Amino acid sequence: MNYPTGVKKDYEKEVYHGNRGMALEDDINETNQYYLNNNIAVIHKKPTPISIRKVDYPSRLEAVIKEAYFKVPSTTDYNGIYKGKYIDFEAKETRHLYFPLANIHKHQIEHLRKVVNHGGIGFIIVRFSKLGETYYLSVQKLFSFLETSTRKSIPREYFMTKGHLLKEKYSPRLDYLNIVDKIYFEGE
Amino acid sequence: MNYPTGVKKDYEKEVYHGNRGMALEDDINETNQYYLNNNIAVIHKKPTPISIRKVDYPSRLEAVIKEAYFKVPSTTDYNGIYKGKYIDFEAKETRHLYFPLANIHKHQIEHLRKVVNHGGIGFIIVRFSKLGETYYLSVQKLFSFLETSTRKSIPREYFMTKGHLLKEKYSPRLDYLNIVDKIYFEGE
Repeated sequence: MNYPTGVKKDYEKEVYHGNRGMALEDDINETNQYYLNNNIAVIHKKPTPISIRKVDYPSRLEAVIKEAYFKVPSTTDYNGIYKGKYIDFEAKETRHLYFPLANIHKHQIEHLRKVVNHGGIGFIIVRFSKLGETYYLSVQKLFSFLETSTRKSIPREYFMTKGHLLKEKYSPRLDYLNIVDKIYFEGE
Repeated sequence: MNYPTGVKKDYEKEVYHGNRGMALEDDINETNQYYLNNNIAVIHKKPTPISIRKVDYPSRLEAVIKEAYFKVPSTTDYNGIYKGKYIDFEAKETRHLYFPLANIHKHQIEHLRKVVNHGGIGFIIVRFSKLGETYYLSVQKLFSFLETSTRKSIPREYFMTKGHLLKEKYSPRLDYLNIVDKIYFEGE
């Protein structure tokens, strides 16, 4: 598997420069809040990892960070608990008609692999923003792709055939636990 | 339960002003790294939640945060997976000979309550730095205290009788999963 250089830069761009990634993040945050309010699951987005260099204290009560840098995340952005199971996932938006693997850090893939090895449920959520399509792809299917392909991106067809389309609704906006139910809790 | 004002300030002080809290954090981070390296568990500290107001881009490759503020955390600092179980805890160091409840945010207590309701394992780790004693206290015991006492702090005796002393070792420095084993996996 080949990770092009500039992964860090790309990541920051997606999160901080433009609107790319924010719409999906909003939808997932709203969905997680719905799950929390309705006592369905406890899943949160982790804060953005930063390295703090300088903090000012203009008053006794106030602390202002004056210099800090974005760090490469060592885990995924989202985790929590659902029906007693540990849940862990990463969410990415792309304007391409394929999913560039550079959008996910190697550390994050390794993290997801460990999660699954310890009995957790791992997946990625990918939105093709130009098509308005959002998919759930289990890490098992992600790993199969990585093991059998040398491509630097996952084609949309792979998500269509191996993943699950997440239909957007009013509330919750992106009911990804519905797919978790189908894969892990069906027939219980 | 009574939360004094200034909780946010206290929290930031513990984390950023002095060394208070850092030694325990280091010990737990080292322990988590040991668990990760030895394929025992996947448990990470969440990044400090901050609110970013201003980012400069001195070059195409670099992003510098020039203004940001600490946010009150809505969850605990540590979570992950162990033997298929969701693990969630908060760690605090105190120089007092009792544990002031103001050291834990109300949001964090509520979060731990939800975690347990969904089948997760929750606890707090408290170090009495002047005594060099570190305790594991399950959230069940924490909740019993909160429900039966109007005190604004938990006496050390409560940790001694209802909690578990975590003996410090060379590696892992603070083997808290040993206690999780005793409570949840004994006899398996």
